[in-house]
Amino acid sequence: MAEPLVTAPDTVHLIRAKRDGQPLTEAQIGWLIEAYLGGEVADEQMSALLMAIYFHGLDQTELRAWTSAMIDSGERLELAGVGRPTVDKHSTGGVGDKVSLVLAPLVAACGAAVPQLSGRGLGHTGGTLDKLEAIPGWRALLSPAEMLAVLREVGCVICAAGPGLAPADRRLYALRDVTGTVESIPLIASSIMSKKIAEGTAALVLDVKVGSGAFMRAETDARLLAQTMVTIGAEEGVATSALLTRMDTPLGRAVGNAVEVEEAVATLRGEGPADLVAVTLALAREMLRLAGLDADPAAALADGRALAAYRAMITAQGGDPDAPLPVAAHSRPILNAPASGWLRKLDAYAVGVAAWRLGAGRALKEHPVNPAAGVLCLAKPGEWVERGQPVLELRTDDESRFTRAAEALTGAIEVGAEPPAASSPIIDRVNL
Amino acid sequence: MAEPLVTAPDTVHLIRAKRDGQPLTEAQIGWLIEAYLGGEVADEQMSALLMAIYFHGLDQTELRAWTSAMIDSGERLELAGVGRPTVDKHSTGGVGDKVSLVLAPLVAACGAAVPQLSGRGLGHTGGTLDKLEAIPGWRALLSPAEMLAVLREVGCVICAAGPGLAPADRRLYALRDVTGTVESIPLIASSIMSKKIAEGTAALVLDVKVGSGAFMRAETDARLLAQTMVTIGAEEGVATSALLTRMDTPLGRAVGNAVEVEEAVATLRGEGPADLVAVTLALAREMLRLAGLDADPAAALADGRALAAYRAMITAQGGDPDAPLPVAAHSRPILNAPASGWLRKLDAYAVGVAAWRLGAGRALKEHPVNPAAGVLCLAKPGEWVERGQPVLELRTDDESRFTRAAEALTGAIEVGAEPPAASSPIIDRVNL
Repeated sequence: MAEPLVTAPDTVHLIRAKRDGQPLTEAQIGWLIEAYLGGEVADEQMSALLMAIYFHGLDQTELRAWTSAMIDSGERLELAGVGRPTVDKHSTGGVGDKVSLVLAPLVAACGAAVPQLSGRGLGHTGGTLDKLEAIPGWRALLSPAEMLAVLREVGCVICAAGPGLAPADRRLYALRDVTGTVESIPLIASSIMSKKIAEGTAALVLDVKVGSGAFMRAETDARLLAQTMVTIGAEEGVATSALLTRMDTPLGRAVGNAVEVEEAVATLRGEGPADLVAVTLALAREMLRLAGLDADPAAALADGRALAAYRAMITAQGGDPDAPLPVAAHSRPILNAPASGWLRKLDAYAVGVAAWRLGAGRALKEHPVNPAAGVLCLAKPGEWVERGQPVLELRTDDESRFTRAAEALTGAIEVGAEPPAASSPIIDRVNL
Repeated sequence: MAEPLVTAPDTVHLIRAKRDGQPLTEAQIGWLIEAYLGGEVADEQMSALLMAIYFHGLDQTELRAWTSAMIDSGERLELAGVGRPTVDKHSTGGVGDKVSLVLAPLVAACGAAVPQLSGRGLGHTGGTLDKLEAIPGWRALLSPAEMLAVLREVGCVICAAGPGLAPADRRLYALRDVTGTVESIPLIASSIMSKKIAEGTAALVLDVKVGSGAFMRAETDARLLAQTMVTIGAEEGVATSALLTRMDTPLGRAVGNAVEVEEAVATLRGEGPADLVAVTLALAREMLRLAGLDADPAAALADGRALAAYRAMITAQGGDPDAPLPVAAHSRPILNAPASGWLRKLDAYAVGVAAWRLGAGRALKEHPVNPAAGVLCLAKPGEWVERGQPVLELRTDDESRFTRAAEALTGAIEVGAEPPAASSPIIDRVNL
C-alpha cells in the first residue's frame, strides 16, 4: 500500500498505524483525545480507531497515555483536606450487587474516607445511584463542595460524577456504546480507572465479577481486566488491588432498587445473607489494608457503627433513612421447583434480565427506573426446595411486564439430588 | 460477554457480530447499506463496521450481498440499445497510465462499444478525466442520454459517473477515505465492481497494477484483488477477467495531464512507447475476446481507425482534437545520471509524487489540477545514459513547486554497469 503523499491528515495516518499494529506514541494519543474533544477528530474517525484498538489492544505505554489523556481532559479532585486516608471500591457490575451501600459506610466506620462516585445502571446490572434513589429525598447530584462536606462529616459519600470529571471518557463511552467497541479490555480498564483516578482517591479496590451475570463471563478475561486496572493504578500513583468474585447467581436475595436497599440495611443490622456479607467483608479488609488502617470490619458491622455511618450518609444527602421504601403494586411467585431436591443453579443473568424487564433497569440512558420493581430469590443454590415451591418472586408496578420477565427465566434453575459443590464467593486477589 | 437484552439497536448487534467474526447475512447487509443511506445507521457506526471488515474480510456470500446492495442503491444503466457488444476496462491506477485514452477508441474501432465511466485522480495516480480535461472544450459531465448518444455514434465514451450510480459506494468511499479503511481487498473490489456493474457493461477487463507506483505493491495482494473482482463479475453476470501489469516505473514517458494526452495521441498515430503499446494491445485483445469479436487491434492502431475513433469521441464531447494543449510556463531538467551506464531503475511512486506536487494531481477532492504540470521521462529503465545526463524533466506553471517535487525524487534512479533484466509489462491473466 502506498504511503501518504504529503502531510496526510494526521488522524487517518494514526488510525492506519494502529490498524496495522504499530503502537501509538504518548504524544499521538494525547493529541487524539484532545482533538476528539475539540472536534478536530470526527466521531467516525474515533470509532474506526476504537475498533482497531479492539483488535490490536493497547500496550502498557499506550494504555498509560490513553488513561492519562482522559484524566487530563477534565478536573482532578483534591481530597487531601479530608483528614483521613481515602480509599474507594469499584465493581464491574453484577446482579443483586448492593455491596457499595454496605461497604462505604462500613469502611468509613473503620476510619477511612470513601469518596464513591457512582453510575446508573444500564442493561441487566443495576446502578448504585438508582438503588439509593429509591430512598425518599436522597440526592445523587452533589456539588464538589457538598461532596467534600459529606465526606469530611460522615467519612463516606456516594454520588454522581460531575460533568467535569474525565469528560473524554464520557464521550468515548457513549461512542463505544453505539459502535460495538465496548468489549475491549484496555478500553474498559482505562474508562474505569480514568474516572476513579480523577476522583482523587489515594487507594482503590476493584471488585471484578466473573460469571453468567457479570460483564466478564470467563475468569481469564476477568483476571486480565483486573491486572490491567491494577497496573494503571500503580502507574498513576493510586494503590490498587482487585478481588475476583463470583457472579453466577445473584448476590444476596434481592435484585432491584428498593428491595436491594432493604437488604443492604438488613446487612448493616447484622442480618445479611452469607454471600453478601462475605464479599463485603473481603472488600472492606482489602480497602483498609490499602488505606493502612488496622481495623476489624466484622466488628464495625456487628456493633452498629456501620449502620450509623450509613444513616448519617443518607441524611447528609437529603434522604430519610426511616422513610418507608416504595413497594410494588403487584407481586407474583414463579419458577416452581420441578421436583423436591437441592437447588443447584439460579442463573444470575436470567434473574438480572427479569428484574430489568420488570422495570428495575433501563434500556436507554434517558429512561427512568421503577424503584419498586425487582426480583426476590426465595431460595438460593445450596438450599433444599420442595416440589412446586416457587424459587422467585417477581415484583412490579406494571402487571403487563410479568410475561416478558418470565420469558427471561427459561432454564434459569436446576434442581437435583445432590447439593452443588460449595465454593467461596471470593475467587482470588490480584495485586501488582 | 453478555448478550443484548431485548431488541438491541440492530446496528450495534450487527457490528458486534462482524467484529466477532460471524458472517452477516444477505438481508443484514442489504439493511445496513440502505439504513446507512437513509441516515438510520450513523457514520460512526458504519466506520466501526468497515474497520471490523478490514480485519475479518467478507466471505463470498457477504461480498456478493455487499456489492449488490451498493448497485441497488442507485440506477443501473441499460446499454442493450447500443447495438454492439459492450465491454469496459478498469485500471486500479498507476503512474503515467494513459491507457484508457488509447484503448477505448481502439476497441471501439474493432467493433465493440466501450462505455467508460471514469474518475478523477487523488494522490499520486492521475485520473483519466483530469487528463482529458486538458483538451480545450472537452466535457466530462454528460447526461445519461448524451452518454448513450456518444456511445452509439462513436462506439466509445469516457465520462464522469453520474450521482445516481451506486450512491452508497460514493458515500462509503468518502467515509473510508477519512477513517483508515481504504486498504481492504473486499471493500476495494466491491467499490470498483459496483460502479462498473451499475454502468451496464456486459463485459469487463481489469488492469490490476502491481509495483511501487501501484495501489497494490505486492503481487499476491494484486492477484487476490483480481480474483475477488473476477468472482464478483461472474456472480453479477458480467464477463470479467483481469490482467496483472507491472507498475514499478511509469508507463510510457509522460506523467501528468496534457503531456499524457500528447503521448496517447502519438500512440494512436503509431508512435507510442513500447510498454504502453504492449499493455494497451494486451487489454484490447482481452476485451475483444470477452466481447466475442474476432478483430486485430494492432491493425486498428496501425491503420488510423483507432485515432479516428478518438478524434470522433473528443469532438462528440465538445473538445477540439486539433487545439493546442496547455504548455507549462516552466520546465527543469533533473536527476542527472551519476555515472554513464544502464538506467536500472526509475521509481514510479517517486515520479508520481513529483508530478502530483508539480500540480498534476490534487490533495483534496475539491482542488483543481494544473493541466500543464507533469514529468517527462527522458530515459527509461533499460536505456543507456551518459554521466550528467538528466533523466527527468519537470514541468509546472508554479516555479515554487520545483523544490518539493525534487524532494520526492531522492533515490528514484539507479544506474549500473549491467542493464536490468528484461521483463514483460504483462505479469499474468486472472480468469475464473
